Amino acid sequence: MTTPEIDPLAIRRVLDGRWSAVRDEVRAQLGQQRLLPDPDLTTEQHRDRVAHGMRLIAESGRPRTGFDAARGGRGDVGAVVTGFQMLGYGDLSLLVKAGVQWGLFGGAVQALGTERHHARHLERIITGELPGCFAMTETGHGSDVQHLRTTATYDPDTREFVVHTPDAAARKDYIGNAARDGRVAVVFAQLVTRGESHGVHALLVPIRDASGAALPGVTISDCGRKAGLNGVDNGRLVFDSVRVPRENLLDRYGDVAEDGTYSSPIDNPTRRFFTMLGTLVRGRISVAGGAGAATQKALAIAVRYGDLRRQFTDPTSGEEVVLLDYLVHQRKLLPALATTYAMQFAQEDLVGRMHALQAPGGERDEAGQRELETRAAGIKAIATWHATATIQTCREACGGAGYLAENQLPQLKADTDVFTTFEGDNTVLLQLVAKTLLSDHAHRVGRLDPLRKAGFAAGLAADTVAERTGLRTLLSRGDLRERAHQRRLFRAREEHLLAGAARRMRRALAPGADRFAVFNGAQDHLLQAARAHVDRVVLDASAEAVERVEDPAVRELLDRLCSLHALSRLEAERAWYVEHGYLTAARTKVLVAAVNALCAEVRPHARALVDGFGIPEPWLAAPMLGVDAEAQRRGDARADDLAAVG
Amino acid sequence: MTTPEIDPLAIRRVLDGRWSAVRDEVRAQLGQQRLLPDPDLTTEQHRDRVAHGMRLIAESGRPRTGFDAARGGRGDVGAVVTGFQMLGYGDLSLLVKAGVQWGLFGGAVQALGTERHHARHLERIITGELPGCFAMTETGHGSDVQHLRTTATYDPDTREFVVHTPDAAARKDYIGNAARDGRVAVVFAQLVTRGESHGVHALLVPIRDASGAALPGVTISDCGRKAGLNGVDNGRLVFDSVRVPRENLLDRYGDVAEDGTYSSPIDNPTRRFFTMLGTLVRGRISVAGGAGAATQKALAIAVRYGDLRRQFTDPTSGEEVVLLDYLVHQRKLLPALATTYAMQFAQEDLVGRMHALQAPGGERDEAGQRELETRAAGIKAIATWHATATIQTCREACGGAGYLAENQLPQLKADTDVFTTFEGDNTVLLQLVAKTLLSDHAHRVGRLDPLRKAGFAAGLAADTVAERTGLRTLLSRGDLRERAHQRRLFRAREEHLLAGAARRMRRALAPGADRFAVFNGAQDHLLQAARAHVDRVVLDASAEAVERVEDPAVRELLDRLCSLHALSRLEAERAWYVEHGYLTAARTKVLVAAVNALCAEVRPHARALVDGFGIPEPWLAAPMLGVDAEAQRRGDARADDLAAVG
Repeated sequence: MTTPEIDPLAIRRVLDGRWSAVRDEVRAQLGQQRLLPDPDLTTEQHRDRVAHGMRLIAESGRPRTGFDAARGGRGDVGAVVTGFQMLGYGDLSLLVKAGVQWGLFGGAVQALGTERHHARHLERIITGELPGCFAMTETGHGSDVQHLRTTATYDPDTREFVVHTPDAAARKDYIGNAARDGRVAVVFAQLVTRGESHGVHALLVPIRDASGAALPGVTISDCGRKAGLNGVDNGRLVFDSVRVPRENLLDRYGDVAEDGTYSSPIDNPTRRFFTMLGTLVRGRISVAGGAGAATQKALAIAVRYGDLRRQFTDPTSGEEVVLLDYLVHQRKLLPALATTYAMQFAQEDLVGRMHALQAPGGERDEAGQRELETRAAGIKAIATWHATATIQTCREACGGAGYLAENQLPQLKADTDVFTTFEGDNTVLLQLVAKTLLSDHAHRVGRLDPLRKAGFAAGLAADTVAERTGLRTLLSRGDLRERAHQRRLFRAREEHLLAGAARRMRRALAPGADRFAVFNGAQDHLLQAARAHVDRVVLDASAEAVERVEDPAVRELLDRLCSLHALSRLEAERAWYVEHGYLTAARTKVLVAAVNALCAEVRPHARALVDGFGIPEPWLAAPMLGVDAEAQRRGDARADDLAAVG
Repeated sequence: MTTPEIDPLAIRRVLDGRWSAVRDEVRAQLGQQRLLPDPDLTTEQHRDRVAHGMRLIAESGRPRTGFDAARGGRGDVGAVVTGFQMLGYGDLSLLVKAGVQWGLFGGAVQALGTERHHARHLERIITGELPGCFAMTETGHGSDVQHLRTTATYDPDTREFVVHTPDAAARKDYIGNAARDGRVAVVFAQLVTRGESHGVHALLVPIRDASGAALPGVTISDCGRKAGLNGVDNGRLVFDSVRVPRENLLDRYGDVAEDGTYSSPIDNPTRRFFTMLGTLVRGRISVAGGAGAATQKALAIAVRYGDLRRQFTDPTSGEEVVLLDYLVHQRKLLPALATTYAMQFAQEDLVGRMHALQAPGGERDEAGQRELETRAAGIKAIATWHATATIQTCREACGGAGYLAENQLPQLKADTDVFTTFEGDNTVLLQLVAKTLLSDHAHRVGRLDPLRKAGFAAGLAADTVAERTGLRTLLSRGDLRERAHQRRLFRAREEHLLAGAARRMRRALAPGADRFAVFNGAQDHLLQAARAHVDRVVLDASAEAVERVEDPAVRELLDRLCSLHALSRLEAERAWYVEHGYLTAARTKVLVAAVNALCAEVRPHARALVDGFGIPEPWLAAPMLGVDAEAQRRGDARADDLAAVG
C-alpha cells in the first residue's frame, strides 16, 4: 500500500461537518451516561430507562435550540437533527421517543398550529412536561393517510369538535408515547363541518389526566412487545365521540369559524393535505440519520471484530489469517462501509438543505421544499434499506458472537428493522419519488417547443437508435475509477429509466386505458427509476464532499472509498448496464475486478475508517472485542435505573 | 386465469411426501399444545416452557424411532428429521433444544461411541433423563474445528483422560443445553497420549451433579440473552484438568488402550477427523428443514395478510386494492414462495438420500456419504440464507403490523437468524462444497485419456472459442418456460463456473505460487461455483418432484411455480449469463417479463399454496389476520407454564 496510515481524527473532522459542535456535545454528555439498551430489561424497565434518558435530553436544553426565538431557541434545525442522529449510537428507543416528543408531536404543534397553540403548549413540550403523541396512522390506513377514517365533526352549538373512531380499522395504531406516557395527542382526522368533509386535519386531543388515567371516551391499549424499540411505548387510541374545544384545531392550513364556516389559505384540498404532510420531512430526514448512525455502529463493531478474529491457517506462513484479510469478508463489509460513508455525506447535504429552507430567515421556496421532500423520501428509503442489509451482514460476519445480545448487533438489527416501513413505507416513498420525477420530466418536456418536443419523444421511443449514439460508446469506454465517468454512468441510468417510465405512463393516460393495470405493470420500472435517481443524488453529494476535503491523504482515501461505493453500486446494477448497451460484458468483468482491487486498497484503513465515525467507546462495548465493558455497563445501567426510578 | 381453483389439501398431499404420517402426528399432537414462543416471557420462563415441550416430545416416543432396534427404535432417520422440521412451525427454541439433545448429543453418542456407551447412556438420552451437550465450538475456533485447543491427555497411571482448557480462546462457547440443563457433555478435544497428539476426538464429560451444581473443575457460564432462541440455554464450559475414565472416550474411530497405545480404524488423521465430522450431516439437514418450516410459516402469515389488507384506491373501480394485487407486492412474496417450494422438494430429496444411507440395512456407501455431505452443506447454506431474506421481506411486507411480536414475524426472524452461521457458517460451507466439486472435477479430468485431457483443458481455457459454440447459441434461444431449457441454463452456469475455478486453482499449485493469495483472490469465484451447483441440485430435485405429481391441476400449478423459481434465479444471475454469452441482453428483458407474467399467474393461487404447507391454524395466530387467537394462545401458554413448573 502506498497510502500512508491515516489519523482517524482527521477523518472524523471531515465526517462531523458543519454541526460538529453538537456532535461533540452529545458525545461528551450522553457518552458518559452510557445509555445503551440492556437486553435483560423487561419492557416496563426499558421504558423507565428511556424516560430517564428523555429527562437528560430535556435538561441538556438541546431540543429547545430547534424551536424559534420566542421559545428561547434559535431555530437551529440542522443542529437538532444532527444531535438526534447521534442518539443512534446509543439506545435507538431513546432516539425514537425523542423524535416522537420533539420532532413529530412538538413539530406538528409548531408547524400546523398557530400562535395560540405555540404560546400555550410549546414550552411544556420542550421541557418534556407535556408528553405527547403524533396520532396519524390507523390500523387500516398507514401508507394511504389521505383516507384516514377518524372523524372530527364540528358542533357549532357547543363550539367543539367531536373526535370519533367509526370502526375498528380507524383505530389509531402504533402510536409512540401512547401506551404509557402521552397526555395529549395530535390526532389526524377527517374534518367535517356543516355536513361537508374538508379532508384530513390535525387537532390536539387530551388523552390522559394528570394521574395518567385515560380520559372519558378515550380507550388506550398497548401494542405490546415489538421486534425492537421496546423502550418506546407504542399504543392504540380509540375515540368514542370525544369533545374538544374549537381552538384545539391546529389551524395554520385550515380553520373552522365559530359558526362552522371552513376556511383555508390553500384552496385545493389535495395540495393542502400534502402541504401539511410536508411538515413530516424532518421526521424522514431524522430517520435516515438514525439509520446511518446505527449502520455506522454495526460496522464499527463488525470491522473491529474482523480485524481481530483469526480463522484457518495460511499454508505458506503457517499463521491463522485475520478474517478481514479474506476477500469474501472484505466483500461483505467494505463496500457496505463505502456506501455508509456516501450516505453520510448525502445526509449532511440533506440536513444542510433542510436547514437553509426551514431555519429562521431561510428562503421560503416552494420548489425547494418540494425537492427537499423528494430527496428526503428517497434518501430515507435507501438509507434504511442499507441499514437493514448492512446490520444483517455485520451480524453474520461475527458468527455466533454476533448473535449474542452482549455484542449489541441483535439490538441494532431489531431496533432499526422498522425504519424501512415507518415514517413512510420505503416502497411507497420511492413511488412518491418516481411520481415527482415523472411530473418534473413531463414539465420539462412540455416546455420544449413543439418541433423539439416531437424530436425528443421520438428519440426516447427509438431505443435502438439511442443505442448507437456516441454517449453509449463513450460510457462503455471511460476509466471506471474516474469520478466524472462514474457520475456519467449513474446519470445515464437515471435518465434512461425515467424517460422509459414516462413513456409507459403516457400510455396510462391514453383514452380507454386501464390506468391501474398500466401503472401496476410499470411499478417495478418506476421504483428502479426512483432508485437510480437517489443513487445519483447520493453519489453527487458524496463526490462533492470528497472534493472539499483539505487534507490530501484523507482526501485520497475517501476518494477511493467513494469509488468503491460507486463501483459496487454499478456492479449490483451491471445487468441493466449491459442490457441497455452502456457497458459491454467485457467491461463488467473489469468492474468486478476493480471492486476487488478497491477492497484490497481500502482494507488497511478499515479500522481508521470506522474509528472516524467518532462513536464514544463506551457505546461500542462488546465482549467479543476483548473489551470487558459489559460488567461496567451493567453496573452503570443499574445506577441509571435507580436514578430513573428514584 | 384458466387454471381452476386448487384444493390446498391436494397440494399438501404432494408436499407432505414420504413421511406424511409423522407430519400428521406432529400436527395432531403439538398443534393442540400451541407451543408458540411468548415474547413476554423472561429468559428463564421461556427456558421452562421449552423444557416442558421437551418432556412432551420425549413422551411422544418420537425421538426413539430414530435410534436402532436395540433401543426400541427402528432407525427411521427420515421420520425423525421430518418430525424435527415440523417443530419449525411452533417454537424454534424447542426445535433447537430437541436437536441438541437427540440429534447432536444423542447422535454423537450413537455414531462416535460403541456398544459400551450405547448400552449405558442411550436409553436415558432418549427419554430425556440424561440431558446433554455437544461441546465442539470454542470461543477461538468455530469454523476451523480441526484446530480446537481443548486437550484430552491420557494418564496411563490412573487410566483416565485429563480434559483441560488451556486458554481463554479454548473455552467451549455457545453450547446448547450447557447453561442450565445439561448433565453430560460430548467434549471435542485434541487427544494426546504418550506425548503425541492424534487430533480431535470426542469424550463424555459429566458437567453437573444430580442437584444441577457444576462438578469440580468445570466452570459453567451463561451466554445470556441472544437475538432469539432464548428458550435454549446456551452456555460456556471451561475445564480445569477434569479427569474422566478411559472408557468415556467415544472410541468408534479412535481408541486408547490401557497402556496408552493409540489405535484407529482410519490411519489418515485428516480423513479420520472428517469421518467423525460426517456424523454432523444430520444436524445440517435438520437445520435446513427447520429453516424451511420457518420460511413457510412467515410466508403463510405474510401472504394471508397481503391477500386481506387493502391500501390505495384503484382509480377505475374506486375500490381499495388488495396488496397482493400490486405487482411489487407479488414481486416481494411470490418468487420467494416459489423458491420455498423448490427448497422443500430439495429437502425431501435430501432426507430421502440420508435415510437410504443411514437407516438400518441402508447401503454403506462412502461415495454416497460424501455426496450427501456436500449436498447437505450446500442446501443448508442456501436454505438458511433464503430463510433470513424471506422472513425479512415478509416482515416488511406487513409494515408496522409485521413489527409487532403478536404477529409472530419478529420471533421468526430473530430465531432463525443464527441458522446462517451455526452448524457450519454458510460461507465456509459453500467453500467446502466448492472444494469437493473441484476435487471431483480434477478426478474426472484426470481419468480422461491424455489426448482428450489436453483437448478438454484447451476447451476450458479458450473462453472466446467456447462462446461461439453451438451450446450457447442453443441456450440463448430456447423457450424460457420450458423446464429442460431452464435446467440446461442452470447446468451450463454450474459447469462454466466450476471449470473456471478449476483453472484458477491449478495456478495455486504451480511451483512458487503464493497459494493463499491465489486461493483468496478466487474465493468469490469458488463461492459462485458452489452456489451454482446447489441451485442446479435444487432445480433438479424440484423438477423431478413436480413431474411425479399425479393430480393434473396441482401438477400444472406446481410446474408454473417451479418456473417462477427457476426464472427468478436466472433473473438474479442474469448479469452473469449475459457476460458469458449464454443469454443476450434482449433475452434477459424477456426473462424479466416472464417473471412478472408468472407472478400474475400464480397470484390467484397464493393462498392455496401457503395453506398447502398444512401449518396448524393455532400456530398461525396473528391478530393482524383478524384471528383473535392471541388471547386464546396466552391463556393456553399460562396453562402450559403451570404444567411445566408444577
